[in-house]
Amino acid sequence: MSNQKFNVAVVGATGAVGEQILGLLDKREFPIFNLKLLSSIRSAGTIINFRGQDITVEEATPESFEGIDIALFSAGGDVSKELAPHAVRLGAVCIDNTNAFRMDPNTPLVVPEVNPEQIDEHNGIIANPNCSTIQMVAALKPLQDAYGISRIIVSTYQAVSGAGTRAIDEMLRQSKEVLEGNEIKPDILPVGSLPVKHQIAFNAIPQIDKFLDNGYTLEEMKMVRETKKIMRDESIDVTATCVRIPVIYGHSESVYVELKKDFELEDVRDLLAESPGITVMDDPASQTYPLATDAAGKPDVFVGRLRRDLGESKALNMWIVSDNLIKGAAWNAVQIAEIIAAKRSACS
Amino acid sequence: MSNQKFNVAVVGATGAVGEQILGLLDKREFPIFNLKLLSSIRSAGTIINFRGQDITVEEATPESFEGIDIALFSAGGDVSKELAPHAVRLGAVCIDNTNAFRMDPNTPLVVPEVNPEQIDEHNGIIANPNCSTIQMVAALKPLQDAYGISRIIVSTYQAVSGAGTRAIDEMLRQSKEVLEGNEIKPDILPVGSLPVKHQIAFNAIPQIDKFLDNGYTLEEMKMVRETKKIMRDESIDVTATCVRIPVIYGHSESVYVELKKDFELEDVRDLLAESPGITVMDDPASQTYPLATDAAGKPDVFVGRLRRDLGESKALNMWIVSDNLIKGAAWNAVQIAEIIAAKRSACS
Repeated sequence: MSNQKFNVAVVGATGAVGEQILGLLDKREFPIFNLKLLSSIRSAGTIINFRGQDITVEEATPESFEGIDIALFSAGGDVSKELAPHAVRLGAVCIDNTNAFRMDPNTPLVVPEVNPEQIDEHNGIIANPNCSTIQMVAALKPLQDAYGISRIIVSTYQAVSGAGTRAIDEMLRQSKEVLEGNEIKPDILPVGSLPVKHQIAFNAIPQIDKFLDNGYTLEEMKMVRETKKIMRDESIDVTATCVRIPVIYGHSESVYVELKKDFELEDVRDLLAESPGITVMDDPASQTYPLATDAAGKPDVFVGRLRRDLGESKALNMWIVSDNLIKGAAWNAVQIAEIIAAKRSACS
Repeated sequence: MSNQKFNVAVVGATGAVGEQILGLLDKREFPIFNLKLLSSIRSAGTIINFRGQDITVEEATPESFEGIDIALFSAGGDVSKELAPHAVRLGAVCIDNTNAFRMDPNTPLVVPEVNPEQIDEHNGIIANPNCSTIQMVAALKPLQDAYGISRIIVSTYQAVSGAGTRAIDEMLRQSKEVLEGNEIKPDILPVGSLPVKHQIAFNAIPQIDKFLDNGYTLEEMKMVRETKKIMRDESIDVTATCVRIPVIYGHSESVYVELKKDFELEDVRDLLAESPGITVMDDPASQTYPLATDAAGKPDVFVGRLRRDLGESKALNMWIVSDNLIKGAAWNAVQIAEIIAAKRSACS
């Protein structure tokens, strides 16, 4: 690799994912020439220290991307829809962490462990999948390659950090109120923009994002559609039930997967253990399995509770856990940025 | 019904389920002549007020059941195994809330909404199913009758009260410690009798009860075996993933169910709404679905998130919630006691 450095913009720099992106760019020694931090006008003016330098967050506008090589977006779908095309016009490659372009047929939807080759197919924008999708496809891709997958039924146990820092604050505040015997007044979850609010502390809410006409939530349909797109197989049946639970960081998933070929459980375990980005934690005898509290802060996807299905001979069940802000968002985006940077450096 | 009254014993009177049983016997005006409260030697001597009368809890021994008509057991499987046969010998009918006799072919396993006719087949002991099984079969029985069921895949979101009052205390204590930034030392969950403990506050633990050789936990295999026994159909494929989450009261379940016949979703909704003990809460437009916090303290099984599966045309997905201490334990047991009392009164 040459010593090429890049002008990088982070849109949504003050948010939960933006914070993780900055931490990873630093930790991974990403080759940055100039770093521009962007946000809504509400957070503009915030000062963030990066590698010893104080950087003032600026309001993101269509002209903010002048001279930017790589722009990482995580400020909500509307912001990406408005500004990413301007960033592209000005020559940047956008890595978008929102839902804005994921299902656009001209936008690759990339998990580097699954479909890195699609990065090259971009037209200026590469979409980062939804957090709950990323960890599932990362764990299932080795099975797809080895056996083929015919069907996935997933139930999720999703952390409040997936709904942003205000949702974390709400959950912690409600927990304290319940412990003190006070009344609570939900005001953010399950969906900030919808009228009805439910208690998240000491509860399980079977709604993440708005409902669609088919009775599924948008979060559930993201898992369905994105999985098929990333795995490049529209014939896989996917059904999802997405549930928010009182966990701060780390989504857990109970996944039933039906394969096309017979398998030995030990082979599946070995295959996953050898796969990049996957850590197998699966030893019932020592009560070892993935836990959200253990996964928090780590980049890996953790897999355990591997066991044969009791009815269908070609199916197995598994428990997949990962930090939704890291592999589920920031780390996946930074991985994509690293691949782009490496290719550009190699060509320069 | 005549005015016959019964001598009733409650074994495990000081436990989480025992407390609910006493509350329900009172509330339901159960025809009690004499009430005997029994426990381990540790809790003997505790005084409990029932219908204005202070009753001293006595240590349960083989001779405690002299003159008892109906004995309700919820003091753990070992206590039931030891003492229920003595209660039967002394002429009592035992309603056992533990795992001790559930899979015994000579012991009926009863959910009154599902298989009340089996109460008559008892040989002195009637088993109350596991909490997570009860609410699921109560919701699925109407579908079995109308369409037939070929397959069930369930992932649970289970409350800590299922592990007893000490587990509730631990979860609340851990939550407080985490909120205050203190270190926590798990000492009960996931399984009191096993060596490894995990944090339950702000976490999801995919282990309830010990692991079996097939990689499933005993809790998961209870759901599998009990469902087949209660529904009297060994051909139903059942797979379960049982998970403890930081909820105090109320188990939630994400259930995929494959039927034998075609169905209209509206017919399923109507059928469930008309079924005894079931309350349908299912209106996405108003963000209405069952929640553990709403189900807590109520006897019903709540069903919502009803939707067609996206892959299998004869399958649907649903969200089933009920208070694990009430319908999942105490209320189911008291319902059985009421049926026995009514039959005896009718015959007397």
